[in-house]
Amino acid sequence: MNVRLLLEFDGTDFQGWQRQPGVRTVQGVIAEATEAVFGERIAPIGAGRTDAGVHALAYVCNFHVDTNIPVKRIAAALTAHLPDDIVILGAESAPEAFHARYDATSRRYLYQITRVPTALRRRMVHLTRYDLDLGAMAGAAPALVGEHDFTSFTPTLNERNPVCTVLAADVTETEGVVTVSIEANRFLQHMVRVIVGTLIEIGRGRHNPEHIMEVMGKRDRRAAGPTAPARGLVFAEVRYPR
Amino acid sequence: MNVRLLLEFDGTDFQGWQRQPGVRTVQGVIAEATEAVFGERIAPIGAGRTDAGVHALAYVCNFHVDTNIPVKRIAAALTAHLPDDIVILGAESAPEAFHARYDATSRRYLYQITRVPTALRRRMVHLTRYDLDLGAMAGAAPALVGEHDFTSFTPTLNERNPVCTVLAADVTETEGVVTVSIEANRFLQHMVRVIVGTLIEIGRGRHNPEHIMEVMGKRDRRAAGPTAPARGLVFAEVRYPR
Repeated sequence: MNVRLLLEFDGTDFQGWQRQPGVRTVQGVIAEATEAVFGERIAPIGAGRTDAGVHALAYVCNFHVDTNIPVKRIAAALTAHLPDDIVILGAESAPEAFHARYDATSRRYLYQITRVPTALRRRMVHLTRYDLDLGAMAGAAPALVGEHDFTSFTPTLNERNPVCTVLAADVTETEGVVTVSIEANRFLQHMVRVIVGTLIEIGRGRHNPEHIMEVMGKRDRRAAGPTAPARGLVFAEVRYPR
Repeated sequence: MNVRLLLEFDGTDFQGWQRQPGVRTVQGVIAEATEAVFGERIAPIGAGRTDAGVHALAYVCNFHVDTNIPVKRIAAALTAHLPDDIVILGAESAPEAFHARYDATSRRYLYQITRVPTALRRRMVHLTRYDLDLGAMAGAAPALVGEHDFTSFTPTLNERNPVCTVLAADVTETEGVVTVSIEANRFLQHMVRVIVGTLIEIGRGRHNPEHIMEVMGKRDRRAAGPTAPARGLVFAEVRYPR
């Protein structure tokens, strides 16, 4: 059976998705749960890497297993062996060929920023000291949409393919929290966080909204703003062909 | 100066508000911060006790101190000595006679319940296994409003004054989260949590909405439902005369 899981996780205490020896990762913790349930440690295939500290509201992964456990029981069986910062929102039997990473057509991330300190949401909101001009940030975001070379927004040198297609990018505000939402076919390392760092510079008035296109044109990481902290970033959605 | 603070706190890792030797409490942690800032350990007066694990979105406390530090600097000065699960949302110089507990005319609590497991909000939402009938719960809540003897909703035997005036009580649902909101002039120990436990029994169909009035009339803790867990409870508001 090719099991497809829909996950929510609080990334605060994980060193990202990808399994690594000696550190706590989401993939590694799920692999341990599969050992308890199926008798073999199976590293699931994830919809994408996430950085340490990044959260997920709806992350998809899959793994192949030979089992007699009915699929409707698998979520509960795995949950019994998972810590409370990973929740299985759904489990289903996917077509044998389904691959959570290769089949994904787009992913969407959210990034939350606030100027007002918060205790209850501190694990998933980036606290900034700056007054942010929402209009300027919202005005800059649409320039990201389309097929562009995002070299300026990643620290990775000699990125094999720096071209991504951004499908949607917007900035909204609710109850004092500014949310940046970006959907793209693919993302480069730290791409959302560097875009958000650049949007914050625009929001605090250090640059005008057109700055984001200038940064993109330079194809140089030094042109962009700082990398915003991981805690504000949430993997919000991944799409597959119907 | 009589300093009035507005606080938000994540109650998960606190044994409630009230200072107690050897355990981590909100009042105790603030008293430690006052020692660092003012050179004396001052236990603030809180708007009310809270149980271990209960959160606050807008808790008020006050303390008297003889200091040259301007009031506008006090929030930042204390914050430098507070952990990140307590946030000072505001600090002001109150009239000398202001007393956060005695002057309060009402307090409001929220209680959040969900059937859908959540990783990111797990610290402040109670996860129930039951399908809840929102209409039944919302239909039961108004019976709480008014001046009543709430003996059935507290484990405290021989409560000196079991009469409370509930000013508002309602049940709403947003994105799969059921929120119970109760405002009263005063609350008995565990009162909101026992009311919520009773409302959950109504929501899952074990009793009809009229049950809540029958429970109240019995003046017997055994008539009510179980005490809902602390994690779902948030101290949301406290009012003072203008």
